[in-house]
Amino acid sequence: MLHSRALHSVLGVGSALSLSAVPTRATSSAVAASETKPKTLRVALCQLPVVEDKNVNIELAKKAIASAAANGAELVVLPEVWNSTYLASAFPKNAEPVPNGPSSAALAQAAQDGRVWLIGGSVPERDESGTIYNTCAVYNPAGEMVAKHRKVHLFDIDVPGKITFRESDTLTGGGAVTVIDSPWGKIGIGICYDIRFPELSHVMRHRGADILVFPGAFNCTTGPPHWELLQRARALDTQCFVLTASPSRAVNNPSAYQAYGHSSVVDPWGTVLATTEHAPTTVWATLNLERIAEVRSSIPLSKQTRGDLYQLADVGPKGLSK
Amino acid sequence: MLHSRALHSVLGVGSALSLSAVPTRATSSAVAASETKPKTLRVALCQLPVVEDKNVNIELAKKAIASAAANGAELVVLPEVWNSTYLASAFPKNAEPVPNGPSSAALAQAAQDGRVWLIGGSVPERDESGTIYNTCAVYNPAGEMVAKHRKVHLFDIDVPGKITFRESDTLTGGGAVTVIDSPWGKIGIGICYDIRFPELSHVMRHRGADILVFPGAFNCTTGPPHWELLQRARALDTQCFVLTASPSRAVNNPSAYQAYGHSSVVDPWGTVLATTEHAPTTVWATLNLERIAEVRSSIPLSKQTRGDLYQLADVGPKGLSK
Repeated sequence: MLHSRALHSVLGVGSALSLSAVPTRATSSAVAASETKPKTLRVALCQLPVVEDKNVNIELAKKAIASAAANGAELVVLPEVWNSTYLASAFPKNAEPVPNGPSSAALAQAAQDGRVWLIGGSVPERDESGTIYNTCAVYNPAGEMVAKHRKVHLFDIDVPGKITFRESDTLTGGGAVTVIDSPWGKIGIGICYDIRFPELSHVMRHRGADILVFPGAFNCTTGPPHWELLQRARALDTQCFVLTASPSRAVNNPSAYQAYGHSSVVDPWGTVLATTEHAPTTVWATLNLERIAEVRSSIPLSKQTRGDLYQLADVGPKGLSK
Repeated sequence: MLHSRALHSVLGVGSALSLSAVPTRATSSAVAASETKPKTLRVALCQLPVVEDKNVNIELAKKAIASAAANGAELVVLPEVWNSTYLASAFPKNAEPVPNGPSSAALAQAAQDGRVWLIGGSVPERDESGTIYNTCAVYNPAGEMVAKHRKVHLFDIDVPGKITFRESDTLTGGGAVTVIDSPWGKIGIGICYDIRFPELSHVMRHRGADILVFPGAFNCTTGPPHWELLQRARALDTQCFVLTASPSRAVNNPSAYQAYGHSSVVDPWGTVLATTEHAPTTVWATLNLERIAEVRSSIPLSKQTRGDLYQLADVGPKGLSK
């Protein structure tokens, strides 16, 4: 499909491109991509509050998506586990099928109503066998779920006296890397703790990702020292944009999980373009997509890796999970 | 050697270890390591000025090492290319054999005189065939060169209007990953641009490194946005200490290469323990080596990687270059 459009574009502009010969497949695709791909992307990261009542959370998400769409967002990102309190015991209670559950239905409708691409944060997903995952579903502006990512690295940490959490008590890790096609280029999806593993981000980059999105609910112990650092590191190492969306902090409910917040946009140079603190809000940024090629040309890391010393192999399944 | 010492230690302490059976090789080594390895390491990073006259640079380095040793340093780190101006055309002029050249001889003597371990920054090295490398030599307190690392990722960048540099015009990249044994655990060595490639640091970690050292002369374009970020990222991702040493900035010679400075020590949690600005100085820190195991236990990344999705292979030669 891309190839035939690409050829059509090249033929359509004729000699204006100064092509000295019949274009190769690679050349024509590259030309088409630069002609048809938008140069900017307006993103909105919804830092949503999360309460115990799932129906309330669904209403909050719908409103935030509608508001973002009405204000010009082209891509909307929701937080990790936006429809449930972040508590291992709450995941089974709020788990539902994806896409055939009420949270997914609401997101599909909201994406369609707002005519936006929606990276739907994550929800606890229960599959046919009863297994529960931490799952991000992605919707296009037609309201179709184009892919889902099941968090592959579960959040099992034990910082003595600070925080102990074991997602693996109730959740199972996903079995695939997720990179989707979008009008703005390929987008890699990870969830929260997935951001700690540079290998995953590099595999997403190898699969062609230009933008990495991590819904994430970091905590107030590892958030301050690590959350921004990890986002900037993944952006700089992969030379991709990195977008994150966190729940807001439950300041009025001290016994609840205290998310760090600080949803952010980082550019491929590692610069924070937009961020916030921990209150409910929407973080906005316009990505200059031409910056990706500029940075990769200035510091051509991908051409300078040393395959004679190390090799990162992408050994997971290659199809998209739906 | 380690194994026999290990067994000796285990046998020496007898039942105090509550070992329920004859220790396995792995168990006994681990016990011995925890008993015999120092719990702290006092490091000094020499942020040296660099002038055109190689002999002057050698004298400056000798003085700095002697001063660091006299003030309690156990491990001393010098900057990248401390014996030559950082200029592609200056590298051939100042290149010499390693270890059989005047710079190496001075470092060996200084390490022996000061009874310190010395990570000798780097110098342009000319081998028997005339090929020139950017080479870090490491000396033990007996003044013996225990290994050398030839920079594997050459600094070839082009940030339009800011900085263009092509080490590959005069230098050749090395062909090996370098991880050495020391009394404080294994130390991985990279040089400057090597820090941009997370795969290299991960391979060093896989080879057992607890400390990563990067002599580096970042510039004033990429230094401010990237130098500290890269050090903290490598430390956090590998859960190692990261030490860097830069030349000081040539503020009185604006036509010379302007190093960013900011030699630093970062702990395995990604926290900057000590740093500086761009003037000549020595940066000091005492590493609490127990922090390495604490961090790796709190956030057990190495046990949580997903070998079913990605695999980083260490395919380089395994011996040490000398």
